[in-house]
Amino acid sequence: MNGIDATFDRLEAEFNAPSIHELSSPLLNRQWAQDAEDQKHAGIHPYPSGVVAARPAFNQKKMRELLDMNSFEVRDRLYELFKDPVFAPRYNDSLDEQRARTIQRWSLIAKTGLFRNALRKFTPEGRRRYEAILESVSALDHSLEIKMSVHYGLFGGTVSLMGDDEQGDKWMPKIESCEMLGCFSMTELGHGSNVKGIQTTAIYDIPSQTFIVNTPCEEAQKYWIGGAFQSARWTALFAQLYVKGVCHGVHPFLARIRNESGTPVEGVTFGDCGAKIGLNGVDNGRIWFKNFRVPHDYLLRRNSQVSLDGVFTSNFKSADERFGASLASLSGGRVSVSSGSLIQAKLGLTIAIRYGLSRRAFGPPDGEETRLMDYPGFQARLIPPLAATFVMQLVLNHLKPKWQHRELGRELHVWSSGFKALISWHALKTLQETREACGGQGYKCENKIGPMRNSHDVALTYEGDNHILLQAVTKTVLPEFMRGFKNGGDFDGHFSYLNDRAALQKVDLRREAALFARLATEIKKKVEAGQSSLQAFNHSAVLVEDTGRAHVELLMMELFHQTLSNLQSRGESELFDILSLCGALHIARLVDSQAVFIRSGALTALEAQNAHNNVQIFCQQLRPQVLHLVDSFGYPPHLLAPIAFDYVRHNSRSRL
Amino acid sequence: MNGIDATFDRLEAEFNAPSIHELSSPLLNRQWAQDAEDQKHAGIHPYPSGVVAARPAFNQKKMRELLDMNSFEVRDRLYELFKDPVFAPRYNDSLDEQRARTIQRWSLIAKTGLFRNALRKFTPEGRRRYEAILESVSALDHSLEIKMSVHYGLFGGTVSLMGDDEQGDKWMPKIESCEMLGCFSMTELGHGSNVKGIQTTAIYDIPSQTFIVNTPCEEAQKYWIGGAFQSARWTALFAQLYVKGVCHGVHPFLARIRNESGTPVEGVTFGDCGAKIGLNGVDNGRIWFKNFRVPHDYLLRRNSQVSLDGVFTSNFKSADERFGASLASLSGGRVSVSSGSLIQAKLGLTIAIRYGLSRRAFGPPDGEETRLMDYPGFQARLIPPLAATFVMQLVLNHLKPKWQHRELGRELHVWSSGFKALISWHALKTLQETREACGGQGYKCENKIGPMRNSHDVALTYEGDNHILLQAVTKTVLPEFMRGFKNGGDFDGHFSYLNDRAALQKVDLRREAALFARLATEIKKKVEAGQSSLQAFNHSAVLVEDTGRAHVELLMMELFHQTLSNLQSRGESELFDILSLCGALHIARLVDSQAVFIRSGALTALEAQNAHNNVQIFCQQLRPQVLHLVDSFGYPPHLLAPIAFDYVRHNSRSRL
Repeated sequence: MNGIDATFDRLEAEFNAPSIHELSSPLLNRQWAQDAEDQKHAGIHPYPSGVVAARPAFNQKKMRELLDMNSFEVRDRLYELFKDPVFAPRYNDSLDEQRARTIQRWSLIAKTGLFRNALRKFTPEGRRRYEAILESVSALDHSLEIKMSVHYGLFGGTVSLMGDDEQGDKWMPKIESCEMLGCFSMTELGHGSNVKGIQTTAIYDIPSQTFIVNTPCEEAQKYWIGGAFQSARWTALFAQLYVKGVCHGVHPFLARIRNESGTPVEGVTFGDCGAKIGLNGVDNGRIWFKNFRVPHDYLLRRNSQVSLDGVFTSNFKSADERFGASLASLSGGRVSVSSGSLIQAKLGLTIAIRYGLSRRAFGPPDGEETRLMDYPGFQARLIPPLAATFVMQLVLNHLKPKWQHRELGRELHVWSSGFKALISWHALKTLQETREACGGQGYKCENKIGPMRNSHDVALTYEGDNHILLQAVTKTVLPEFMRGFKNGGDFDGHFSYLNDRAALQKVDLRREAALFARLATEIKKKVEAGQSSLQAFNHSAVLVEDTGRAHVELLMMELFHQTLSNLQSRGESELFDILSLCGALHIARLVDSQAVFIRSGALTALEAQNAHNNVQIFCQQLRPQVLHLVDSFGYPPHLLAPIAFDYVRHNSRSRL
Repeated sequence: MNGIDATFDRLEAEFNAPSIHELSSPLLNRQWAQDAEDQKHAGIHPYPSGVVAARPAFNQKKMRELLDMNSFEVRDRLYELFKDPVFAPRYNDSLDEQRARTIQRWSLIAKTGLFRNALRKFTPEGRRRYEAILESVSALDHSLEIKMSVHYGLFGGTVSLMGDDEQGDKWMPKIESCEMLGCFSMTELGHGSNVKGIQTTAIYDIPSQTFIVNTPCEEAQKYWIGGAFQSARWTALFAQLYVKGVCHGVHPFLARIRNESGTPVEGVTFGDCGAKIGLNGVDNGRIWFKNFRVPHDYLLRRNSQVSLDGVFTSNFKSADERFGASLASLSGGRVSVSSGSLIQAKLGLTIAIRYGLSRRAFGPPDGEETRLMDYPGFQARLIPPLAATFVMQLVLNHLKPKWQHRELGRELHVWSSGFKALISWHALKTLQETREACGGQGYKCENKIGPMRNSHDVALTYEGDNHILLQAVTKTVLPEFMRGFKNGGDFDGHFSYLNDRAALQKVDLRREAALFARLATEIKKKVEAGQSSLQAFNHSAVLVEDTGRAHVELLMMELFHQTLSNLQSRGESELFDILSLCGALHIARLVDSQAVFIRSGALTALEAQNAHNNVQIFCQQLRPQVLHLVDSFGYPPHLLAPIAFDYVRHNSRSRL
């Protein structure tokens, strides 16, 4: 028996996972998905003629390749695996059952061997494969994705990025094979987004050559640690490192917290975080340390080292730089949160748009009722988020290779922070809108949108609270603006467009420029009135966030236009045309939904009214293609929901 | 044993409700609430000096009286009852357990005898008491409120409003005492908001003197019927009435659907609706009828009658008027949905604001971290919805007596539709914002906000989809505008302000006027281009909804100003002052968050910027009073959540 089998056999027994036989339930069968596949194989079009354009205006395979980028075989292989009854959706289960099921599902995926060599060297090929696996899982079960990404991405990522080569070579193969099952002990009860403030201490003890780890107060208990309550044997542990009485700031350690049998090691106490509004397949836990000893070798020492006799050295000069580098694995986390958010949005839109094409309500007194998707009011609710989802996916596709190639730095920080905030909010709004658009059916668990919204919701506040992230964007970019602001309006870098009157014809540039200028003025005024620059910044919080949003939305449009240019130069005119329309709708919608454009003087009321009218016009233009657009996401029926297909048949009495 | 005891003893056995002993769980204890009460009795202020104003700027008891209006003894008695362990929150339970617990809780409330004489005559006193009970329950457990309001409000309300006096006298006492347990069979799989389109038929059969009820197709199965899957023995059944081959439209019947033992009666088949994203204490079910016989006497005949030999008569001339009257109980449903929505918003705000006063994050490098509530960015997220909640509650308090006094008509329809839409959306946004404001803690079930959001979410689409309701408002009000529009600008009724240049200085009037004028023009243009007026209306859907929203928001501000005037004339200057500030913040926020004000020309960009600045200024002015404001909602600790109090102690290791 290999390592993977041994690990999961033991875990499944420990979690007491129910056997597959117990899975059958008339409420949860997937006959509706089978029906849809049968219909497709028989060549039957799902909607009567005229409901959508007879053929796509673009090549759907090429569109999927553009969106998913790579690893199509991996994705399709997993989608096929998900037909196994173990992966059938279940919604009535207790917390214990949900956690057990997650282990059972992870086991089947781990046993495919797809993770082999995916993580150990942090190669671009490995990262791409790893991300494709996680993205496929995200489309099935968000709890499972998070459970897996905590182990491979956060725990494994920390060991691989923060450990030196020797440490990586020693541990990464065992992490890939799940022989070392880990969690990520960063967050504490008292400190979440403010990682710098964590209070757990790791004091180097020269005589014993160990780091002695303690939880000095209740606020310092590790909190929300995914996998900590039951499955994890190891952890990536973050603590304030003290050597010879000097604090060197937050540092990462590898530490064993449970014996293989599952009992806690000495000095470690665990607690449950209990039920959450989603992601209940993840056993989030709490950890207290009391004189817990971590061997000298287990400091992850790529960036900082402590010699056996207690001399601290570091590759970075300042504590701030060291701290920044030690958070590198979080940038990856934000890329994967963004990616997962878009997957939830795509699924929600696919389900709701397909339902909107078949569901009828109200209509002329003497005729058939009208399909929901033929109401302009309904189109205005679903088509703009559909367009935005295409835009944002193609924007995110500029960021993903940077992470895969370990291009860590300011750009990765700003992009991953800003994209994570705007994309996760976009997904929430989209899931909420699609839930409401499906009426009561959207409130049923089996239709997947509601449970997706609930599990996705955590994305807004974890891996950095969205508001804090937008503030961080502004904080990082503002100095660049200030240089030009202070030296009399000669701007460089990103802001060099401000020296160019023609460029300022563009509304998104005008908005960004107006907000940065207003913010700079406001902060200057406050500092002159005696506030510290931190106070001045905090007291301008609303403007700071507006400014961060303006910067990120502008960045997104620039990256999206790069994609469009590439398509044009490759002669992909069909893709170019449909995506240009998506981009036009997205920008019209942005302008229409935010008063800040007019308020900042970037737009006149008349231009705003035109943008408003354009939203409806572009929606109508995209309407005949909506089915083809959502189908190009490439999700098979069993990853969707009954209302995406023949929901009347699914609900018929004969299926009771 | 009386009727109530007998009913619930039987039901509890049938639902297999777990005994109270099984309720204890360390995760779910309410020690935190006991701690908070102990602290209060010991006279210890929950926050250090200076965190909030030392004393309220207003009398909190008077504020609560203004908000809750009546039945304070009933409310406080129930809050006290909710200390019973049966009412302790639970979040890990299966669907079956949740349904059983709901019955167990209902039983204890029913046995208080508070419902006696509350419903049978539809008296204002009875309605007030009934609504106070439901509002109190809503603060505890939304599933339980819905379960109860389906029986008493929708089922009982239909019998009392649609049955004649004889029918009411016969059945209402048994409905009050739960001897006749009922559900409300209106919605069908194929028809939700469009009630007129339901397809269930009830054909009067002269020889047998019965109505023969059938489900003619799968779309006609009754769907989402709360209580239908397990508890209901009776139903208020809506079907298309046919007499001698003529269809007279939708009519209500009383019908027994289960024997007392719980087995279905002949001709009735039940199905489960399964797991939902909230409200799982309610056993929503599906019903199919096959030659199901309803005795002649069970047509609810206040408005329409069928003689034994098959002559149809009605108090209303047209089928449309009859249909409108038969939906009267839905207006009450919308009043109670609005009321419940505000309760969820109040609880969410109380929990999040108290947490924001104690939770610290980030801060100056050399000092204590800053309390969340002291960040202007955080204030901007929670204080505007707090102000809006006060405004909306006082607005709704104008509507409630109209319903209690059975003032049914156009005004009740417009107000209840418009208020339900805007208030339920407000509650959703507030719950989402408070959930995010509490970070990870907001994602935990025990902190109540997340589960409240999920159960409340259904309010957006039931009792009329919010979008449809806003359209209905415009549809009802537009003809009044059109009269003035067509006769050259001489307006009367609501729109007479258009004849008054001075009135048009007010921004909310300007917006409404601009949108109605634009809508009238757009529809006229479309009709002239050959569209039917229905098509023209549907194709203007976005504008139609904007217009409906403008009308309802204007109405709300007018009603709120009536409340302020009343307070002023009663010399309640403290309440007047603080509520005026809430009103000013609410209107500034409305203007700031909706581009439509500028787009419609109602506001200049400069005025918009002023409104934007005012939001922050008014938030700062309200900041010292936030604790006093939320405490004036009057919810005791055990209806709140651990993070509203000492969350560190609650999470301490000693409480594992």
